[in-house]
Amino acid sequence: MPESPQQAPPAARRRKDGLVILHTGAGKGKTTAALGLALRAVGHGMRVCMVQFIKGKWQCGEHHAAPLLGELFEIHPMGDGFTWDTRDREADMRRVRAGWQLAMDKVAAGGCRMLILDELLYVLSYDYFPLQEVLDFIARKPADLHLVLTGRNPPQALIDAADLVTEMVAVKHPYQQGIKAQKGIEF
Amino acid sequence: MPESPQQAPPAARRRKDGLVILHTGAGKGKTTAALGLALRAVGHGMRVCMVQFIKGKWQCGEHHAAPLLGELFEIHPMGDGFTWDTRDREADMRRVRAGWQLAMDKVAAGGCRMLILDELLYVLSYDYFPLQEVLDFIARKPADLHLVLTGRNPPQALIDAADLVTEMVAVKHPYQQGIKAQKGIEF
Repeated sequence: MPESPQQAPPAARRRKDGLVILHTGAGKGKTTAALGLALRAVGHGMRVCMVQFIKGKWQCGEHHAAPLLGELFEIHPMGDGFTWDTRDREADMRRVRAGWQLAMDKVAAGGCRMLILDELLYVLSYDYFPLQEVLDFIARKPADLHLVLTGRNPPQALIDAADLVTEMVAVKHPYQQGIKAQKGIEF
Repeated sequence: MPESPQQAPPAARRRKDGLVILHTGAGKGKTTAALGLALRAVGHGMRVCMVQFIKGKWQCGEHHAAPLLGELFEIHPMGDGFTWDTRDREADMRRVRAGWQLAMDKVAAGGCRMLILDELLYVLSYDYFPLQEVLDFIARKPADLHLVLTGRNPPQALIDAADLVTEMVAVKHPYQQGIKAQKGIEF
């Protein structure tokens, strides 16, 4: 079932090839929905690159699944563990910068149709990366590139620059009920 | 970055293998996040079965992507087009029943670790299928089976029976801005 807003659509509907998409909110599903977009895009033959700014090189289902999607999907975990070690802010900022540069290199190399910057919003909210650089990229990115950003608390300027913003709200969370994180669900 | 509720966790944290998960709300990402869960689960070697109650046999990215995930993922679109032709309620209800039976057969055959019933909540909200039958299934389903239900307006009894409920809220939608549905994003 497609999402059908109740209001009438604008009279002149236009095609836009590369959307800027934010998945935000405190609920589950931000990264998961980005993975779903990747799966769908690869299904259409699009090349997808995902950079994970927080998650480290631990055993994630998506990292096992990535080879299944073949050469059209690549995933790059830049984090250094389950959460950052924020005791070394400079090192963390260098890691973010390295992830950003990797993403820019992938786009510059051409052929990438979807770029997922997982948890970049989190990084921005802690001032680990300049927002303006992200806004500049959005302004000059290839027209056919879908850009997907996930994380909490997006700055208003990014919401303004985005085409699609979805907030994932936790109505009920298993953690609240004393259930451990699940393989295949949470990671 | 895992979701970390602010409150203290219960003292005795228990393992629960098969969660009941609802993706609801008017925003994007309900089905997409379910696909992401499927990708992650397949990455862990789990068998996933997805039945789509609304979407028809049109060209969806996920249907092209399904073969990429190999024999661990199967997807069954039971709908008859982009939206239902609700002029024939009896036929629609038979179609829902057929989808449900297919799902039950897959579970009964064994080996399925995740069952995604896409848009079943929509079906329930229109009384096209008895809620009690879904609740009964939840009560007696295999303990290691993750059950993922998507759609709007879940009945409270289902929220009560669920372990994880996420509401996808549309903060900003491209449709509102006169942008057409996108291949690789919306379908």
